[in-house]
Amino acid sequence: MAKKKAKKSKVLKPSKTKKYIYFFGEGKADGTGEMKDLLGGKGAGLAEMTRAGVPVPPGFTITTEVCNMFYEQGGKTPDFIDKMMLEYVKKLENVTGKKFNGENPLLVSVRSGAKFSMPGMMDTILNLGINDNVVKTLIKLTNNPRFAWDSYRRFIQMFSDVAIGIPKKKFEEIIEEMKEKKGVKLDTELDAKDMEKLVTKFKELFKKEMGYEFPQDPIAQLRLARDAVFKSWNNERAITYRKLNDIPHNLGTAVNVQTMVFGNMGNDSATGVGFTRNPATGEKEFYGEYLTNAQGEDVVAGIRTPKPIKELEKDMPEVYKQLREITSRLEKHYKDVQDFEFTIERGKLYMLQTRTGKRTAKAAVKIAVDMVNEKLITKEEAILRVTPSTLDQLLHPIFDPSVKLDIIAKGLPASPGAASGKAVFTADDAVKWKENGEKVILVRMETCPDDIHGMDAAVGILTARGGMTSHAAVVARGMGKTCVAGCEEIKVYEDEKKFVVSKSGIEIKEGDWISIDGSTGNVIKGKVPTVEPKLVGEFGTFMKWADSFRRLKVRANADIPRDAKVAREFGAEGIGLCRTEHMFFAEDRLPHMQAMILANDEAGRRKALEKLLPMQREDFRGLFETMEGYGVTIRLLDPPLHEFLPKREDLMLAITEMELKGKTTTENEIVKKALDLVPGNENDLEKAKKLLHRVEELHEFNPMLGHRGCRLGITYPEITEMQVRAIIEAAVELIKKGKKIIPEIMIPLVGNVNEFLNQKKIIDDVAKKVMEESGVKVKYMVGTMIEVPRAALTAGDIAKFAEFFSFGTNDLTQMGLGFSRDDAGKFIKAYIDKGIFEKDPFQTLDQVGVGRMMDIACREGRAARPDLKLGICGEHGGDPASVEFCHRIGLDYVSCSPFRVPIARLAAAQAAVKDKLAKKGKNIKEKDK
Amino acid sequence: MAKKKAKKSKVLKPSKTKKYIYFFGEGKADGTGEMKDLLGGKGAGLAEMTRAGVPVPPGFTITTEVCNMFYEQGGKTPDFIDKMMLEYVKKLENVTGKKFNGENPLLVSVRSGAKFSMPGMMDTILNLGINDNVVKTLIKLTNNPRFAWDSYRRFIQMFSDVAIGIPKKKFEEIIEEMKEKKGVKLDTELDAKDMEKLVTKFKELFKKEMGYEFPQDPIAQLRLARDAVFKSWNNERAITYRKLNDIPHNLGTAVNVQTMVFGNMGNDSATGVGFTRNPATGEKEFYGEYLTNAQGEDVVAGIRTPKPIKELEKDMPEVYKQLREITSRLEKHYKDVQDFEFTIERGKLYMLQTRTGKRTAKAAVKIAVDMVNEKLITKEEAILRVTPSTLDQLLHPIFDPSVKLDIIAKGLPASPGAASGKAVFTADDAVKWKENGEKVILVRMETCPDDIHGMDAAVGILTARGGMTSHAAVVARGMGKTCVAGCEEIKVYEDEKKFVVSKSGIEIKEGDWISIDGSTGNVIKGKVPTVEPKLVGEFGTFMKWADSFRRLKVRANADIPRDAKVAREFGAEGIGLCRTEHMFFAEDRLPHMQAMILANDEAGRRKALEKLLPMQREDFRGLFETMEGYGVTIRLLDPPLHEFLPKREDLMLAITEMELKGKTTTENEIVKKALDLVPGNENDLEKAKKLLHRVEELHEFNPMLGHRGCRLGITYPEITEMQVRAIIEAAVELIKKGKKIIPEIMIPLVGNVNEFLNQKKIIDDVAKKVMEESGVKVKYMVGTMIEVPRAALTAGDIAKFAEFFSFGTNDLTQMGLGFSRDDAGKFIKAYIDKGIFEKDPFQTLDQVGVGRMMDIACREGRAARPDLKLGICGEHGGDPASVEFCHRIGLDYVSCSPFRVPIARLAAAQAAVKDKLAKKGKNIKEKDK
Repeated sequence: MAKKKAKKSKVLKPSKTKKYIYFFGEGKADGTGEMKDLLGGKGAGLAEMTRAGVPVPPGFTITTEVCNMFYEQGGKTPDFIDKMMLEYVKKLENVTGKKFNGENPLLVSVRSGAKFSMPGMMDTILNLGINDNVVKTLIKLTNNPRFAWDSYRRFIQMFSDVAIGIPKKKFEEIIEEMKEKKGVKLDTELDAKDMEKLVTKFKELFKKEMGYEFPQDPIAQLRLARDAVFKSWNNERAITYRKLNDIPHNLGTAVNVQTMVFGNMGNDSATGVGFTRNPATGEKEFYGEYLTNAQGEDVVAGIRTPKPIKELEKDMPEVYKQLREITSRLEKHYKDVQDFEFTIERGKLYMLQTRTGKRTAKAAVKIAVDMVNEKLITKEEAILRVTPSTLDQLLHPIFDPSVKLDIIAKGLPASPGAASGKAVFTADDAVKWKENGEKVILVRMETCPDDIHGMDAAVGILTARGGMTSHAAVVARGMGKTCVAGCEEIKVYEDEKKFVVSKSGIEIKEGDWISIDGSTGNVIKGKVPTVEPKLVGEFGTFMKWADSFRRLKVRANADIPRDAKVAREFGAEGIGLCRTEHMFFAEDRLPHMQAMILANDEAGRRKALEKLLPMQREDFRGLFETMEGYGVTIRLLDPPLHEFLPKREDLMLAITEMELKGKTTTENEIVKKALDLVPGNENDLEKAKKLLHRVEELHEFNPMLGHRGCRLGITYPEITEMQVRAIIEAAVELIKKGKKIIPEIMIPLVGNVNEFLNQKKIIDDVAKKVMEESGVKVKYMVGTMIEVPRAALTAGDIAKFAEFFSFGTNDLTQMGLGFSRDDAGKFIKAYIDKGIFEKDPFQTLDQVGVGRMMDIACREGRAARPDLKLGICGEHGGDPASVEFCHRIGLDYVSCSPFRVPIARLAAAQAAVKDKLAKKGKNIKEKDK
Repeated sequence: MAKKKAKKSKVLKPSKTKKYIYFFGEGKADGTGEMKDLLGGKGAGLAEMTRAGVPVPPGFTITTEVCNMFYEQGGKTPDFIDKMMLEYVKKLENVTGKKFNGENPLLVSVRSGAKFSMPGMMDTILNLGINDNVVKTLIKLTNNPRFAWDSYRRFIQMFSDVAIGIPKKKFEEIIEEMKEKKGVKLDTELDAKDMEKLVTKFKELFKKEMGYEFPQDPIAQLRLARDAVFKSWNNERAITYRKLNDIPHNLGTAVNVQTMVFGNMGNDSATGVGFTRNPATGEKEFYGEYLTNAQGEDVVAGIRTPKPIKELEKDMPEVYKQLREITSRLEKHYKDVQDFEFTIERGKLYMLQTRTGKRTAKAAVKIAVDMVNEKLITKEEAILRVTPSTLDQLLHPIFDPSVKLDIIAKGLPASPGAASGKAVFTADDAVKWKENGEKVILVRMETCPDDIHGMDAAVGILTARGGMTSHAAVVARGMGKTCVAGCEEIKVYEDEKKFVVSKSGIEIKEGDWISIDGSTGNVIKGKVPTVEPKLVGEFGTFMKWADSFRRLKVRANADIPRDAKVAREFGAEGIGLCRTEHMFFAEDRLPHMQAMILANDEAGRRKALEKLLPMQREDFRGLFETMEGYGVTIRLLDPPLHEFLPKREDLMLAITEMELKGKTTTENEIVKKALDLVPGNENDLEKAKKLLHRVEELHEFNPMLGHRGCRLGITYPEITEMQVRAIIEAAVELIKKGKKIIPEIMIPLVGNVNEFLNQKKIIDDVAKKVMEESGVKVKYMVGTMIEVPRAALTAGDIAKFAEFFSFGTNDLTQMGLGFSRDDAGKFIKAYIDKGIFEKDPFQTLDQVGVGRMMDIACREGRAARPDLKLGICGEHGGDPASVEFCHRIGLDYVSCSPFRVPIARLAAAQAAVKDKLAKKGKNIKEKDK
């Protein structure tokens, strides 16, 4: 570790031009909000608030320069600073009318505060100044001995841990011991006497560990706490963090010393929380609650029922007036709804915290539109006020908020919405039950393309395996259907048609009612009524503003005309990805697809493809018609062929079973169904063996990295030929009717320009032939997915021939990070818990790694072909942070599932607005490194 | 396509300062070898040879500037060039004493020749000048009517195809028709009369297609051929090629017109081939053969037996003397063995071709050392003369060259050498047969870690599936054992203990003798004796020179002391990769490994790991000891845990079988063996179900991208702890004995610096603890594999904490290209056939894509940590072209399997020499774009 070694025995003198400690309080502050370098982020913020006339508890900030002096002097704060600090303590005592160790005792908090907030640094010591004497004074003042002793024991614990370095664990052991003795489980079950005993034991422990008594002098406490903050600047975690984020090691941290205030000092004291507008509806009304003679924690803890804030007007009319005045001013100052905490200590109001208020999506939209009308903010600012992902709440049904939910498990929120239905365990059952008029939820270990008809029949899908981009999740989002995926807490027994929640043992059988919330991942026992949220009037206005700002176009990923129609209604401007293979899983097509795969030669394959041609043509005709006037990007066949055949192990088991039983027909329903699709007159056993043989040939260890994408079109050119013919013939048909059709043919999984050239030649040849046959000219484009890292790294070469790129960020993430999206569920939660990735890289684009590849591809692609069209069609196209990134690197459009189109529209608008403001030199918010 | 559109109706005038046509012949040439821009590569070469006094058939070159004029003038050669060309034809007639259409008729070849050789451009038209009249003259002169008519029909065909654009196919159809009528199969079975008939039919076809007679005027033929060359510059393939390779479109091509000569004009004519030294042994002797009154093709065709070249001394002493003199001069001029073709036309010697002679590895080493001793070349040049990969021939046994081989199939040459043995089909059988004193070849569909003991017992391994870096290939190379992998032509029936060659139906049963050649991929029926090649005396000298030049260190990939010992004997300077997991597959360890995987909690895992600790420590002690004084890089556990458990489908089948038969013990031997290792007293059925449950939990769709590498160490830190403890304890033990031990701990599959930090903390903590316990200080390094694309792209961050990088190019290729190495066999052959990749990217590093990532990682890693140690441990570390690349991007070492160490040493030396020469401004050879 490159830990900065402390130099020794240097004595520093004060500089006459420098100020080392900055005071704030009583409406005045030495510092300003700009002085983050010197005061740290927290200190600068306290100065700003004070200057704005907000009554914050007064205090002072010791600058970052002192921290550097501390290190220069070998880990010692200069004596002159020590003296200076005493003067500021005096000033604080004067201003507050309190005194360390006095009748009205001064207690303070001590916090670190660097320019950038940094994990690993010392956080907070509360109640500094308390000692054997003060604790008694506090009991008198508050009439609350438990509070006083609890505060004291907490201080000893915190102080000993962070300032002195005695392990927290040792204190906890003492508490555990006491609870065991008393036979209680919770800390709250300990009374004042217990707390007093704890203080005695803690002090004993301190003496045993350190060899001297716990410091009773508040100034001594303060010195130790201050130096502990300085020391924490150079602990290992902080150094690692700075290295990782390229933060200079010589910035130093400031120390903030701030008065503690108490709302429990009698009936002229109180504490409360509130909002400047209603955070649920967005209505402009003062909103909140408070408790007299109480501490902040009591409001949250719910032991006493707080009073609505309106009553404060009667209780303390002056204070209420001041509070309203201050919070209105804060709303104007910050130009946003404020969520505030306040404490009234002996009739004097202190604002402990004010921050942007969290709100529902509905409220956010209303507040944003209202504030523009109130001329408080601009339209640009309004656009930035709504978190795009929350729009989901406005587009999908939700559970009736008045109903209590019996949550039995939690999975990934894979596709938003709320759904209740009877549990079924196979796709066929889903269809059957639905035909009988039942609402069903399809529960599967994981879904596969075979399940599509069942997913279609169900109102929601629940899977035990797979991540946010697993088959179930992707397909459900495409359908706009509620889905909870990767719910590892349940075990699905498909054969026995039930699932069991591992922890609780709760069993859900076929036909039992369950409900799933695709926005939270909750799995609920029983039937829960859902409500359709109404789109408030402001929504339309808001989205219109958004559209007027954005530069990025928004397209949708849609495979069938129905989805395309939904997308267009949501504002999609074209199709960014049509996955042609999804068309082949339909029951009337699968046999032809299988016949093609089972054919021994090209002639056999061509025969089967001929059957598929008119169907594909019809699919494309529908899509083109729905999206008339907009570009429709059609991706050629992508998945490995074995996906169209039954599973290897199912066949193996069925064969073994038939052989052992001496039968030639199988009892396995799934296999039976698959065998019925196999052409020929053999019996089941023979068919199964034939099929297994081919499945074995096609079997792959890592299908994701196997024979798929353009690799199929290269080894079986006849597949590409058929698909291109279907596309161009469909276009011809519509162009003849005078429609404007813009087909964009996309070659998947290109990693080498030669692959692209191979497929482009086939495409151009077939297109030319079809145009000659029909006498109709079709303007089509040929482009490629950029989803293999090598494609991104050789984009300059590929762009010489490709007219557009569409970033397939699902696969680019899989290959770039080496994460199989179907398997990553096994470790990705642990990765996020441990902070290895901040967010699931399949949900939010990994900008550092995958994003860098995209950036390279954009720059080098455009250098080779300035009018190269650039888009994204991975799942990230609907993720707001990723959309912003796409804007930044210069894409032309993003494409996402139909139900995310409004989200992407807003995210794109926000990106454009931020860009515009940044160009004007306005930083929305300094980015925390 | 950005095809250059021809501009019309511009008339260009000749420039007085420019020369448009360059003559060569009779020892003089207008041009020089340097004028590639103007004369193209071929034209410049002909000028150089002529100037060097080599009697090449005379001719002239029309410059690339004329090509550009051709396009400027709308696809027409300027008239003044046309006139100029006639003058040069005259000159050629004078110099050769031949005349177009004359008694001694002039025939010429016409070839394109651009600065860079380019696929897609017109290649060659031979025999131009032939017509109805000349063919008769030729018959008279050669007395060989078949030759004359054959030349004529070939000319018509070639000329019509390339110069005029009549599809070749139409001519071929005529030939086919004739052969069918005659009932013959080969062109050679057609006689003079047939050829004459073909000429008639070809001319008829020409007239039918074009509406006019086949041009009889040689000058007209020449004009058309010349313009065809110019046109070919802008055909689609050539344009695509130039775009791909960034070659400017305005370079243009030159046209070379050269006299044809004939060795079949009587007994004063002859033709032959030869070498300036013996290409098999390297001995310095004039070597070759010739035929009097014959054509070049006759020597090769083997219809007449050629005479040894010595006899030419008696036949034509003057010519022989001249030939010896010229070829000696050529050897001196080119400073290398020459392989030459010559023709004597009526007593006059012409050199048709001279090129560097191909030679065996043995000869190459001898010639290189000899030539240094002869002061013909420098040591640096000598080093460049031996193709590193050919050293394999000197290090492994080969089949007795005198035995005729019955080759029945061909796979990938996965691990060099030659081996004969009896075929066996399971690892256990291999061990059993070996114990009975038999030599066996293990034949498997594919191998897996379970097969290690069988691979060890066999003399060679043959698999039907998997590529050059499949499990079988990697392990076999590590063991220095012959292996043919991915032999898709055979079908292996492991249950029936046989394999069948698909095409021929040949069946090989257990116990049948087969032989495999790991250098060619050949599979041979029967037993073939092998010979151990002797290392010639020059080999030692040569390798010593090589070592003196190289900068790159060469390490070996070795997992066990035995391999490490071999590596050290081959000159390895440390271990670049020890795969610790290979140690866990041994029979005494697997049960503990399985117990760990089956444990329900950390405590259970720790218990199992404790059993493994002493074994691992002993492994590492052995390795450290063998490599004392050198660095030993130990990679922490890498493969997914399911690799240590039986296969899912095997368990499923065994369970179904037991259940259907109502039994509780399994008959499946493989499963039985696995179940015996499972701790506990349950019966087989219960054990199998328990095992299957865990296998299901661990099952992954794409294990390559799943829960493996450092992801294991992060979710199960206790595994990392155990391994680090074993490493440090082993080092401590040896350091105590005074040995110099340099452990380098390598974290696999890092893609994010946070993963590295997580594991590094565990490593440092455990190391500190062990050092404190033992009181011995161990200097160890902690580094990482760079094998995930994201790692390469964030190398700057990782290098802040990692002390070394080792490029795991196998996985970097898999992820960078999206090729599963186990599955890519299905399409990679097609890819190479179609020219999509030039070489298998698993054998030779894909420098453009994967190499770019490496380069980024090197530059950004070194920027963050200037003393970062860089190496490669992927299979590419033993591939010469890849080694050169590693040198170029600044790696410190390459690591490869022990048997490739000498190859890597030579390749590293070549890279350094090339670098040195390039810095001196000497270009070894201008790289063809």
